[in-house]
Amino acid sequence: MISALALRARLDNGELTAESAFRQSLDAIEGLDGTLRAFVAVNPDAARPANISRSGPLNGIAIGVKDIIETADMPTEMGSPIYTGWRPKADAALVMLARKAGAAIIGKTATTHFAQGDPPETRNPHNHAHTPGGSSSGSAAAVAAGMVPLAFGTQTGGSVIRPASYCGVAAVKPSYRLLPTVGIKCYSMSLDTAGLFAASIADAAFALAALTGRKFPGPTETPAMRIGVTRQCFAGEVEPASEAALAAATEALQRGGAKVQDLEDPPEFAAAWRLHPIIGDGEALRSLAWEWETHRELIPPKLTEALSAAENFTIEEFDEARRAGKRARIAAHAFFRDVDAVITFSSPGAAPKGLGSTGDAKFNRLWTLLGVPCVNVPGCQDGRGLPVGVQVIAPFGRDDRALAVACVLEDALQRVHA
Amino acid sequence: MISALALRARLDNGELTAESAFRQSLDAIEGLDGTLRAFVAVNPDAARPANISRSGPLNGIAIGVKDIIETADMPTEMGSPIYTGWRPKADAALVMLARKAGAAIIGKTATTHFAQGDPPETRNPHNHAHTPGGSSSGSAAAVAAGMVPLAFGTQTGGSVIRPASYCGVAAVKPSYRLLPTVGIKCYSMSLDTAGLFAASIADAAFALAALTGRKFPGPTETPAMRIGVTRQCFAGEVEPASEAALAAATEALQRGGAKVQDLEDPPEFAAAWRLHPIIGDGEALRSLAWEWETHRELIPPKLTEALSAAENFTIEEFDEARRAGKRARIAAHAFFRDVDAVITFSSPGAAPKGLGSTGDAKFNRLWTLLGVPCVNVPGCQDGRGLPVGVQVIAPFGRDDRALAVACVLEDALQRVHA
Repeated sequence: MISALALRARLDNGELTAESAFRQSLDAIEGLDGTLRAFVAVNPDAARPANISRSGPLNGIAIGVKDIIETADMPTEMGSPIYTGWRPKADAALVMLARKAGAAIIGKTATTHFAQGDPPETRNPHNHAHTPGGSSSGSAAAVAAGMVPLAFGTQTGGSVIRPASYCGVAAVKPSYRLLPTVGIKCYSMSLDTAGLFAASIADAAFALAALTGRKFPGPTETPAMRIGVTRQCFAGEVEPASEAALAAATEALQRGGAKVQDLEDPPEFAAAWRLHPIIGDGEALRSLAWEWETHRELIPPKLTEALSAAENFTIEEFDEARRAGKRARIAAHAFFRDVDAVITFSSPGAAPKGLGSTGDAKFNRLWTLLGVPCVNVPGCQDGRGLPVGVQVIAPFGRDDRALAVACVLEDALQRVHA
Repeated sequence: MISALALRARLDNGELTAESAFRQSLDAIEGLDGTLRAFVAVNPDAARPANISRSGPLNGIAIGVKDIIETADMPTEMGSPIYTGWRPKADAALVMLARKAGAAIIGKTATTHFAQGDPPETRNPHNHAHTPGGSSSGSAAAVAAGMVPLAFGTQTGGSVIRPASYCGVAAVKPSYRLLPTVGIKCYSMSLDTAGLFAASIADAAFALAALTGRKFPGPTETPAMRIGVTRQCFAGEVEPASEAALAAATEALQRGGAKVQDLEDPPEFAAAWRLHPIIGDGEALRSLAWEWETHRELIPPKLTEALSAAENFTIEEFDEARRAGKRARIAAHAFFRDVDAVITFSSPGAAPKGLGSTGDAKFNRLWTLLGVPCVNVPGCQDGRGLPVGVQVIAPFGRDDRALAVACVLEDALQRVHA
């Protein structure tokens, strides 16, 4: 994988030019993407002098952008034949944040249809017979395969953290609205959160800081950590690989001096988790109304199922789901009160075999509804050598803390495996 | 003005066909809009059998749509030369809600540039030398002039309620997110709220119910009302016309048996009111980043001023503004506790003379930040015969109550003037 921070250092000390860094990514895409299918569009001109800044913390860094995020210089096809060749007028706010920070938008990455469940052709770089996860399939695969140092995704349920877990990359789904969603085709306007993929937690923290103008202090500033653990029993069964990853994380943190304790999930969490689809699919029925009403023959099976189900939701069910979400957000204050962060599963296990499904978001969707920052920490594997991540979660607005704890955990897991 | 409910009745009893109702609106636009400039695009084919539903509660009703709201069959120019001729791919979610309810989207209405302060050419139907208000200038004027029974607008500060007050029409800015904003060029993603204009409160309630699938019971179901009054002293001075309108509303409600009491504004309201621009303009700097970075020469003066100021906001100021907003939302629970609804000024006075400014949102912006439903009740005038409205506000999610109280007030004001 390409570390954004390592690239930054080589660019800064003159070992590498922005053009040659970009060219390396272009070459990697050309070499690998015929098989992996992480990209749906590439802009070889993105690093031409006229198109990039010579300053800014992301100067010289190539970014892949999920193809539901609008770009003025490349098509935005939403993973759907309805949008074949569609060229928006303007760049999405998030794309402009990246450009203003100096980044080169190298291409658009494959997404499930409208960021729901129907997969693109993307393959998992660790085993081409397995899904990379979704909906941000191409972004996770592109970083995992070493094509680009950074990529953008979005998450309604688990569309950033789950593919990161399956592909063995670091990723952050920040607090709701830390990154802007204007110019992104939202599936659910009250859930959709933009996030990013990187080679390591430190790279992800660096990129998020560069995009938002915030500071994310490193792990050294978090001594004597208090870590909560939840197994999210309300979400159902977990596979041995994820169970083992969480156990390894617990042990690694304890060995590093952290105080780790099991937390009890408040009943409001289970209720909100259960009702998440009422909000998500209910809002999608509005967001995608034009596509649903005018091009239904081009809506794929899983999305059809979700929107058809949503047509039967009542106003009362929708309002109750929103209220349940609010109650869970209030309950989260007490849940996080005595810990610095919480660790849990990033996904039910390693990437499932086959490309027909992108896996299950059951261990992600509660946290998206809560709006709290989530980080996937890579570093564990199942018996077949497929990656599986661990999720670090902090209270709303404490993205700094989520990233700091994730950084410590990433390092601790590396020591265990070294 | 054209009452949507009266039109509904005539359509239902066969006095009028959908085509002839639509034709009446087309004729009114043709006759009046050369002077008023409420519309920037008209679709004469919108009511052709292939384009409209024969069923649905808004069947036969023509709607004008503010031109920051995307439409697949008409340009969406955002009030800006940057978007001249721009044709989006899809209809915004709100437009599709209207189409699914049977409405005919007759045209796009004039907006200030990107729904900020730089005015379009629209004139106030009550006096062509005066502003219709903004940013939803064309929508307010189109309903006021009797061109259409309904029109859509959006509000970041006071862009629905203020032009409604200036143009003498009913309008509702519902609770945040009651109407979807996907497919709307948001100035501020956490403030922008879609709303609508109609000939009367009953018409507005009918339309909002038709769009959202909710029920809004009429005024008869709200006996013995308890009404709070706030003069929003934190917002500065008010003109005699608005002062007189609020006094008339108070008296009319008391005469009808309501218990009216002055409320004290909690200090959190003043703080949130003061910081509203940090959120609004701060988010706009992200939402409009592409336009600002690539077409700055086409950004008009007031918007330039707002975005330039936003470039100097710090992250700390932005976060503090968001926290102030949250504290005000919490304080609002107590503020509304002992009343059914609150009345206050809709605007500082009647429409100012001249077309260079769309007026001041100072009496609106707190409530937009709180996300609470606001209704403009027409029926009062200043000494020159220019309309001035009164604003009815209810707690978050109680759009039904805001509309019911507004209905009673509208009726009470008519009795006074009869």
